[in-house]
Amino acid sequence: MIVVMQKGAGDDRIQAVSDLVTEWGLKPHVSRGEERTVIGLIGDESKVNEPALEMMSGVEKVMPVLKPYKRASLEFHAQRTVIKIPPARHGDRGLTLGGPGVLVMAGPCSVENRDMILALAAFLKGAGAHLLRGGAFKPRTSPYAFQGLGVEGVRYLSEQRSVVGLPVITEVMDVRDAEMIAEFADLIQVGARNMQNFALLKVLGRCRKPVMLKRGLANTLEELLMSAEYVINAGNEEVILCERGIRTFEPFTRNTLDLSAVPVLKRESHLPVVVDPSHGTGHWDLVAPMARAAVAAGADGLLLEVHPDPAHAISDGPQSLTPGRFKELMRELEAVAGAVGRHLG
Amino acid sequence: MIVVMQKGAGDDRIQAVSDLVTEWGLKPHVSRGEERTVIGLIGDESKVNEPALEMMSGVEKVMPVLKPYKRASLEFHAQRTVIKIPPARHGDRGLTLGGPGVLVMAGPCSVENRDMILALAAFLKGAGAHLLRGGAFKPRTSPYAFQGLGVEGVRYLSEQRSVVGLPVITEVMDVRDAEMIAEFADLIQVGARNMQNFALLKVLGRCRKPVMLKRGLANTLEELLMSAEYVINAGNEEVILCERGIRTFEPFTRNTLDLSAVPVLKRESHLPVVVDPSHGTGHWDLVAPMARAAVAAGADGLLLEVHPDPAHAISDGPQSLTPGRFKELMRELEAVAGAVGRHLG
Amino acid sequence: MIVVMQKGAGDDRIQAVSDLVTEWGLKPHVSRGEERTVIGLIGDESKVNEPALEMMSGVEKVMPVLKPYKRASLEFHAQRTVIKIPPARHGDRGLTLGGPGVLVMAGPCSVENRDMILALAAFLKGAGAHLLRGGAFKPRTSPYAFQGLGVEGVRYLSEQRSVVGLPVITEVMDVRDAEMIAEFADLIQVGARNMQNFALLKVLGRCRKPVMLKRGLANTLEELLMSAEYVINAGNEEVILCERGIRTFEPFTRNTLDLSAVPVLKRESHLPVVVDPSHGTGHWDLVAPMARAAVAAGADGLLLEVHPDPAHAISDGPQSLTPGRFKELMRELEAVAGAVGRHLG
Amino acid sequence: MIVVMQKGAGDDRIQAVSDLVTEWGLKPHVSRGEERTVIGLIGDESKVNEPALEMMSGVEKVMPVLKPYKRASLEFHAQRTVIKIPPARHGDRGLTLGGPGVLVMAGPCSVENRDMILALAAFLKGAGAHLLRGGAFKPRTSPYAFQGLGVEGVRYLSEQRSVVGLPVITEVMDVRDAEMIAEFADLIQVGARNMQNFALLKVLGRCRKPVMLKRGLANTLEELLMSAEYVINAGNEEVILCERGIRTFEPFTRNTLDLSAVPVLKRESHLPVVVDPSHGTGHWDLVAPMARAAVAAGADGLLLEVHPDPAHAISDGPQSLTPGRFKELMRELEAVAGAVGRHLG
Repeated sequence: MIVVMQKGAGDDRIQAVSDLVTEWGLKPHVSRGEERTVIGLIGDESKVNEPALEMMSGVEKVMPVLKPYKRASLEFHAQRTVIKIPPARHGDRGLTLGGPGVLVMAGPCSVENRDMILALAAFLKGAGAHLLRGGAFKPRTSPYAFQGLGVEGVRYLSEQRSVVGLPVITEVMDVRDAEMIAEFADLIQVGARNMQNFALLKVLGRCRKPVMLKRGLANTLEELLMSAEYVINAGNEEVILCERGIRTFEPFTRNTLDLSAVPVLKRESHLPVVVDPSHGTGHWDLVAPMARAAVAAGADGLLLEVHPDPAHAISDGPQSLTPGRFKELMRELEAVAGAVGRHLG
Repeated sequence: MIVVMQKGAGDDRIQAVSDLVTEWGLKPHVSRGEERTVIGLIGDESKVNEPALEMMSGVEKVMPVLKPYKRASLEFHAQRTVIKIPPARHGDRGLTLGGPGVLVMAGPCSVENRDMILALAAFLKGAGAHLLRGGAFKPRTSPYAFQGLGVEGVRYLSEQRSVVGLPVITEVMDVRDAEMIAEFADLIQVGARNMQNFALLKVLGRCRKPVMLKRGLANTLEELLMSAEYVINAGNEEVILCERGIRTFEPFTRNTLDLSAVPVLKRESHLPVVVDPSHGTGHWDLVAPMARAAVAAGADGLLLEVHPDPAHAISDGPQSLTPGRFKELMRELEAVAGAVGRHLG
Repeated sequence: MIVVMQKGAGDDRIQAVSDLVTEWGLKPHVSRGEERTVIGLIGDESKVNEPALEMMSGVEKVMPVLKPYKRASLEFHAQRTVIKIPPARHGDRGLTLGGPGVLVMAGPCSVENRDMILALAAFLKGAGAHLLRGGAFKPRTSPYAFQGLGVEGVRYLSEQRSVVGLPVITEVMDVRDAEMIAEFADLIQVGARNMQNFALLKVLGRCRKPVMLKRGLANTLEELLMSAEYVINAGNEEVILCERGIRTFEPFTRNTLDLSAVPVLKRESHLPVVVDPSHGTGHWDLVAPMARAAVAAGADGLLLEVHPDPAHAISDGPQSLTPGRFKELMRELEAVAGAVGRHLG
Repeated sequence: MIVVMQKGAGDDRIQAVSDLVTEWGLKPHVSRGEERTVIGLIGDESKVNEPALEMMSGVEKVMPVLKPYKRASLEFHAQRTVIKIPPARHGDRGLTLGGPGVLVMAGPCSVENRDMILALAAFLKGAGAHLLRGGAFKPRTSPYAFQGLGVEGVRYLSEQRSVVGLPVITEVMDVRDAEMIAEFADLIQVGARNMQNFALLKVLGRCRKPVMLKRGLANTLEELLMSAEYVINAGNEEVILCERGIRTFEPFTRNTLDLSAVPVLKRESHLPVVVDPSHGTGHWDLVAPMARAAVAAGADGLLLEVHPDPAHAISDGPQSLTPGRFKELMRELEAVAGAVGRHLG
């Protein structure tokens, strides 16, 4: 940590800062410049009360030198995390997320009914998808909108696991549901609006299933990594980071998909990175180009909305692919993955 | 709702849209323009599946005409909500929020210990503050930061109510704590990061205490009103809206306090509006000018951080006022309130 | 400037950085921390090639310590700039901007015709406005929109000066018009879209009239101060800073008026600060509350759109006040100014 | 255009709106809904004074139905624009931008000296680049930063054209330089800060060279298309659109490169689309993944910063590729282009 003193701050001010940090067990290292004096703090930074320093008379600003995330950081954990997803049915082959393969997680925004889930899952499996996504509990801006089938939806997803055999990723919204969802789902999703629901993150840190954290609409990548840190710190090291678009002033897209998040997160962290171009753009015709771009940028997985009949979807129809378009996209993704030295699956 | 057809969309497309909305029980009203045909939907809009329309062949866009919030809206509820806060101690006088008086809610960011709370509350009461604010449960970006005293903090706030007599506003972060906090607090605060924690909003809709919703860092005012709609719809009509700054690219301030939220929310809704210039700016020297500006813009209340010794505050020291500066600010606020035909308290 | 080395950067890397900065004439000051080594550079920072440092092997980041603005800064120029605006007509009294008085600059968005300008100016003068604002050259997003009356508009504004007697502020968009506008206008306005039109800023630095710089829609306050620095550095010390709203994702307002810009700019700079609530909100019913708030926050002046018949204004009607509403607002502003120890004019 | 009336707006209000639009030569089409009446305007929308409607008593809002851009729009100009760039030297082969080939425009941020330009251009040509980029006039936030070599830089770029033979793209900042730059450059670049410098756009509309418009830091894609409309409307149909990152709150990247701009612009417009991942990310290690992603998303060209010695670059070193890294990237781009059915060149 570095303390920058105000122009003209006197020796007594500099001494007071030095005394305080010495009290905390750190060593102050004073550099007197032409216009400013700066004081470097040497020692255990976790002992520093940064706001206290900022408030001291004569202090202009305090600049952190170290990164606030440790256990999510590549610097402190040089080996990349590879998550093993066991087969949904006995005899099937398991999956790995974070290795050379790129996983495609596809399905409807909401679980609408049993038949739809079973039929769509069978189609998706045939078309090469690796996991089934589908929401049983839906975060909706309006209390009057469809809130998901709840436990009934969970039951259909679960039935699909044993009948069709796709591992399942689904969202948890309420701490009270976490255990139930961890019981049957293969991956647990935390939605963008809950990225900083710290009570939920702590509970998921005690679950024994991988957790995929979606970046909040206005959260920085550092904050996403800090939320991962919450889960890891509470005991669960299997965390996946997901870019799903941030809020900007651009109205042509529902959100602005920040693909540079992929190389930044791969540089900063050892955790796998997934991209959701369906929520990230909000329009089905933008999903395919952005899915290809995500793979070219280095994503480890994709989250794609597919609906047998998007025009009659209960939620988020306009951003869903039809089955036909999905099949075509899988071929395109295979080609792009190959061009960057990877493969699907 | 209005459906805008694509340029050159044929009669069959127009008919298909008309048929679908008729199926839903609405009447289509077709206007053929020179470049575009538009179809107005007349009838109960809650029956419309908007995404389904957007996906139809030949449809360019669907434009909602009605506002999505009803019960939070001034249009449907012409009488302004005035919230009565009963006295904390027998014999004291109660407060009203949303009437001609402007309420000042002051206190530390975090409850740090018993003595600090009792002493500070006594000072604040003497200086004219109306409620005590203070966090027992703290949402912190880092799992390594101080997370609040928890139940112990609640106990100190509660003791203060009976000893000093300031009504209390405090934050709830976890659905499992809602009942306990509703028991003793006078106002329950939902933090910015939980504005769209819909599970929590539904639980608070069943509590019997007023709920103050802080606007999320990247949420629109419409979304804030929709979150209020969740609470009201679940049974609790006493909702307060709080502007506390949105996230922008400006680094001089921690957030950008959007004071135009005050007149917009007063125009759109009947609910009281409070402003938090401490979190909204992040720097104590900006708090006073922005607090004055909030009152001049029409706020019904202010949330201010005050700390007896900001340099040693456990959280958010740099945005806290000293007791001396708070006293001075109260005098300034009294003058500004008078200039706009209001008064403190 | 401080150079933070990567974790584990070896002595050769540290030496290489030290050698390079020594070459530039600065003294390196090395602090070895537990996790990181940081190197403080002591001496003339203008000699440092910051990108060169960032590219060096072993360097993690470079953190500037000094502020990039000098001549616009309060630190280097402790006396506040007060701009004298001479009377438009012989015998009238002049104005000062940046002193205890708050100046109101009112008028239509566009100069529409001669009669309108003369009549409106006479009304505004009677109602207490201090300057007439009005655009002869209009920056419009669409090439098909009204682009202003141009030189003809300038003529009407000029005629008004001698007939009615209000000093004039008007916008310059093209370097080739700068001299002509500087000739007759009392204040020259640079619009938000031209805040970083550096060619224009340099030309205005050689004009002998005060220049008001509007903050760009996505510019930081530091960038606004750097644009002021361009004008001052080119020879013109009379610069006024204007907050007019930044672009965010909030659709209820045309822009988000960032009133915290007022106290920040007053703390960082000696230049006067003006607020434009008309462009900043885009809706006439929000102009009055935000104008009051701007004065309460410490603004030195206001830019207000007033139109005799907003419903028939050629540009920006919805954000214009009617003459009646303007008169009422002047009374409100007088009261708020009084409450914060200032006065109008 | 559609006019939405307020709830409870009486017949007289509806009649007044109908009368006004009839006066303008349009036909009002009134739909009375359960909560709101809406009025569709049929006829020539260019006759509508939208702000005038918004100000009328009883009107809640006015919603445009048509897109404001015409000549830049794919709807009105179904054939994609393909720009032919003639060979720089006699005997070389020309280039096309906007066809199946993807063009790579590479070079330093600033032209620094003659030798550097000639040597680097020779290298880039050998490595497969198609155009040389390099700034002679540099827009810099600070007046104290290097402002470019100016006319001298232009001379070196020009010399390179005849010696090495790469066509040149360079930036114009001042209307007074436009003719001189149009004389020698093959493509004229308008920087992000000048995207709405309307005086400059009009002048470029009269030049006989293609114009590449960079999206402003906070501009929407509709505004970018409207700026293209300015150039086309003034007579120059050869316009290229460039995405170079928008400003957000994310500090890990200098800007947020919005790659969804590529498919949106290709859907809305017939103009070619280029992506600049160097400015868009600000860090050389993010340039390669984002360049690959841009091609996968459908970009027609790339703008890449390459510097023989980034650590000693005068401007923007940290975002420049070394020659070695550039060669490697060209191979990667060839593979990705192939995977999406395109090729370099």
